[in-house]
Amino acid sequence: MNATIRKAGANDMAQVLRLIKELAIYEKEPDAVEVTVDDLIAYGTGDDAQFTCFVAEEGTDILGIALVYYRFSTWKGRTVHLEDLIVRQEHRGKGLGMALYTEVIKYTYELGLKRVEWVVLDWNKSAVDFYEASGANVMQEWNTVQMDAEAMKAFLAKKGLI
Amino acid sequence: MNATIRKAGANDMAQVLRLIKELAIYEKEPDAVEVTVDDLIAYGTGDDAQFTCFVAEEGTDILGIALVYYRFSTWKGRTVHLEDLIVRQEHRGKGLGMALYTEVIKYTYELGLKRVEWVVLDWNKSAVDFYEASGANVMQEWNTVQMDAEAMKAFLAKKGLI
Repeated sequence: MNATIRKAGANDMAQVLRLIKELAIYEKEPDAVEVTVDDLIAYGTGDDAQFTCFVAEEGTDILGIALVYYRFSTWKGRTVHLEDLIVRQEHRGKGLGMALYTEVIKYTYELGLKRVEWVVLDWNKSAVDFYEASGANVMQEWNTVQMDAEAMKAFLAKKGLI
Repeated sequence: MNATIRKAGANDMAQVLRLIKELAIYEKEPDAVEVTVDDLIAYGTGDDAQFTCFVAEEGTDILGIALVYYRFSTWKGRTVHLEDLIVRQEHRGKGLGMALYTEVIKYTYELGLKRVEWVVLDWNKSAVDFYEASGANVMQEWNTVQMDAEAMKAFLAKKGLI
């Protein structure tokens, strides 16, 4: 692997967004990405950045990203969440994913935090096996619940609050 | 319901921690709570607070809490995560949980954000039914993965990084 792993800056965000969109197209949800380059710069750079994006770079090309941010556990305090780990299709199998994964674990460990967390699709056996082999704990009993803006609006309207 | 819902300040955090610990004892994990009152004040108050804690208060007693923070979706941008919603055992059935839940949805909606998210145990049928009836989407295919400090250390040592 000849790639360098480093933190993304404002100038990288156009390429970062391209990777995010590539994955969405691969997952057959091309229109799901509402995030813009300006959002990535606003929330992912500067002193009060809400997330940190690591990039795997070869020359001037960004071939992979790992995007993390803090969460707060009422038991363990500050933790790290790995939101996305993406490697460009044609650059898989070169160790970039492992390099980014290792960087995220090192980052969390060096901050002295007690947990790094992410989600995986239960049918993605190769990912589940990889995570378990690396020492992570895959918990099948917790389900993710999401409410979108439309459902929030309907809920609040029903309560007479909007 | 005679309770007031408001945001917690530094003076509330001792009572907030008591509720967190009560729940841990109920869940038979009394030693799992490593968070301190100082942590709650440091991360949950002030201009750069990492989380917002809503409390349900009757007189000077905090009877319930809902603790939320921002996350960042690479598709939807900033979102809200509901980490914990706790109502004291002896004050359940009075609508406090619904009032806190409603407050969190209202807070997210008024911020103009596109998603509020949390997790639920899959065997907790009454909670799952409640969330679905309120318009939320319970997704069984996503599993939570966590790596703790010990596993991070072992992983990094194996890689020769520490």
